[in-house]
Amino acid sequence: MVSDMKVVPVLMSGGAGTRLWPASRSDRPKQFLPLVDDRTMVRATLDRLGGLAAASPLVVANAAHAELVRAELATAGYDEDRVILEPFGRNTAPAAAVAALELMKGGADPLMLLLPADHVIDDVPAFHEAAEHACALAAAGNLVTFGIVPTNPETGYGYIRAGEPIDDAAATVAEFVEKPDLATAERYLTSGEYFWNSGMFVFRCSDYLAALEEFAPEMKKACETTMDHSRRERGVHLDEDSFSGTPADSIDYAVMENTNRAVVIPLDAGWSDVGSWTALWEIARRDEAGNVLIGDVTATGTTNSYVRADGRLVTVAGVDNIVVVDTPDALLVTTLDKAQLVKNIVERLKDEGRPEATGSE
Amino acid sequence: MVSDMKVVPVLMSGGAGTRLWPASRSDRPKQFLPLVDDRTMVRATLDRLGGLAAASPLVVANAAHAELVRAELATAGYDEDRVILEPFGRNTAPAAAVAALELMKGGADPLMLLLPADHVIDDVPAFHEAAEHACALAAAGNLVTFGIVPTNPETGYGYIRAGEPIDDAAATVAEFVEKPDLATAERYLTSGEYFWNSGMFVFRCSDYLAALEEFAPEMKKACETTMDHSRRERGVHLDEDSFSGTPADSIDYAVMENTNRAVVIPLDAGWSDVGSWTALWEIARRDEAGNVLIGDVTATGTTNSYVRADGRLVTVAGVDNIVVVDTPDALLVTTLDKAQLVKNIVERLKDEGRPEATGSE
Repeated sequence: MVSDMKVVPVLMSGGAGTRLWPASRSDRPKQFLPLVDDRTMVRATLDRLGGLAAASPLVVANAAHAELVRAELATAGYDEDRVILEPFGRNTAPAAAVAALELMKGGADPLMLLLPADHVIDDVPAFHEAAEHACALAAAGNLVTFGIVPTNPETGYGYIRAGEPIDDAAATVAEFVEKPDLATAERYLTSGEYFWNSGMFVFRCSDYLAALEEFAPEMKKACETTMDHSRRERGVHLDEDSFSGTPADSIDYAVMENTNRAVVIPLDAGWSDVGSWTALWEIARRDEAGNVLIGDVTATGTTNSYVRADGRLVTVAGVDNIVVVDTPDALLVTTLDKAQLVKNIVERLKDEGRPEATGSE
Repeated sequence: MVSDMKVVPVLMSGGAGTRLWPASRSDRPKQFLPLVDDRTMVRATLDRLGGLAAASPLVVANAAHAELVRAELATAGYDEDRVILEPFGRNTAPAAAVAALELMKGGADPLMLLLPADHVIDDVPAFHEAAEHACALAAAGNLVTFGIVPTNPETGYGYIRAGEPIDDAAATVAEFVEKPDLATAERYLTSGEYFWNSGMFVFRCSDYLAALEEFAPEMKKACETTMDHSRRERGVHLDEDSFSGTPADSIDYAVMENTNRAVVIPLDAGWSDVGSWTALWEIARRDEAGNVLIGDVTATGTTNSYVRADGRLVTVAGVDNIVVVDTPDALLVTTLDKAQLVKNIVERLKDEGRPEATGSE
């Protein structure tokens, strides 16, 4: 039977955001930075809920970011103590499990709309429409994922192949496929059957936990034990010992690839996971020379470049296809084509014990 | 009649060095920076005199740099008050004139070896040999310039065409020619008759002043008036009013192109005028990837680049042919090919009244 209870948005704020170093650091990863506009990405994600028939959001975040999250909730007008704080990340499946357990306290069983806290969605009405459709399907017992309508043969994402149509704007999931090579991605793009795996979902809490019981019982048990042992003080502080017994896994691997109740709803709404400086360049408003110049930047003879100043004068001259990100204690210079190397750089700096890899000045 | 008096090195330190911004600023231009090794270029120029039969050097510099110059002279073991301080630059011909007038005080008439304070010469014995040869020819009444044996078809320098041989290693000057186009520069290079105009000279003081009297009498008179009105206190402080009456001109234009006593001595000694970041990259020791990485730099997949950190971590990834120069208050990113744009950038910043154009933090 379908409940009248409003869907509960659950923001998953576990990402470390190393691909946007040096702006993004462990102590303030990308979801807490105003990278796309003057709002943090958490705030933009919260603002995007306005107009949706939704309950007050719940945020699952790293305990180190508790005050950052509370400040975002408070300034967005939400309950700042509606947080679940992880001692460490265990990927999305356990995060969704503790959220479901929390939301079922006292016998409730709402739908939850699971949203990464660091994505961009430009077309909010389209997002709301898809979310409402997803809620209707989830209320009927489906495990719903959103499939982003691809705009280019992207090789950096996993894909979802749609199966049998359920209605005008939903289908069963035929299969999840790993990141393809370029030729395969081009085939996916033209087929119209494939969607980017967005990492956004709508589930009824009990349906998700039942699927976990079936496909990842150890995880479900560890999450239940964790919730039993967790401290409550301005939110839920997950018990470190119990939570360390949870396997780390994604919702896709733990549940979606195994269940026969998976449904995909196409979403064509200007989505980006903002997974690199190149992605930020792509979604930003560029000037006539193709540049995105942020802060105190002087550009001469410069084209198709992303340049971000942060306090000091940054001058670029005669360059093309360049990424420059300046921060008080670290500077990055790379190209739009090679911006994915940033992750390797951060790994290397961590190995070297460099403070710039993790903290900010 | 040839005097036994030792040649007096005269360092000309008037350059603003804007092409090496942001490291070089008006208040500390490139000759006062350790750009090539751990010594400033003034210090390297002074050190290069060691072993030459020369008197204590005299430095002509901007008054704003008086203390910088004195410190260089003192730490190099020379008389720190042997300076002529200009209220503003008037190019090299007036600088050489006031130096000649100063050196002729009390009836002396030594040779002077005029040296820009911001050049590099790697092969010191070759430089000494050429300088001694120049002194012998200048003692005989010639106005001697050094012509750098070209190593590439450089289009950024003026050239000197050698005329009739005087001896094994000197010739009359047939003509001075302006910066050529590439085809012309290639012809110059293969001809063997052309040399780069180095801006280094040896003159007997009275011969230089006599030539000025003949070709630039107004300049000579203004410089004489200036010296008469200048204040002496730990060196000569040129009188601002009188010096403002001096036309600004180079030694080449004012004298060398007009006299029939001009002689050129070829110099093949690893010379560079260090006129751009590209020049610094060229003369530096490069690693196997062709990079020059100075300071706290992390490079990944980077080739043929010049990267200079100054206090903060600088990371470069996947770039080729790039120049990155970081300072506490300004950053430059350009390419080796476009580094000459730096001069334009500084002009633009000056026009905008930016403090970073002139001073340093």
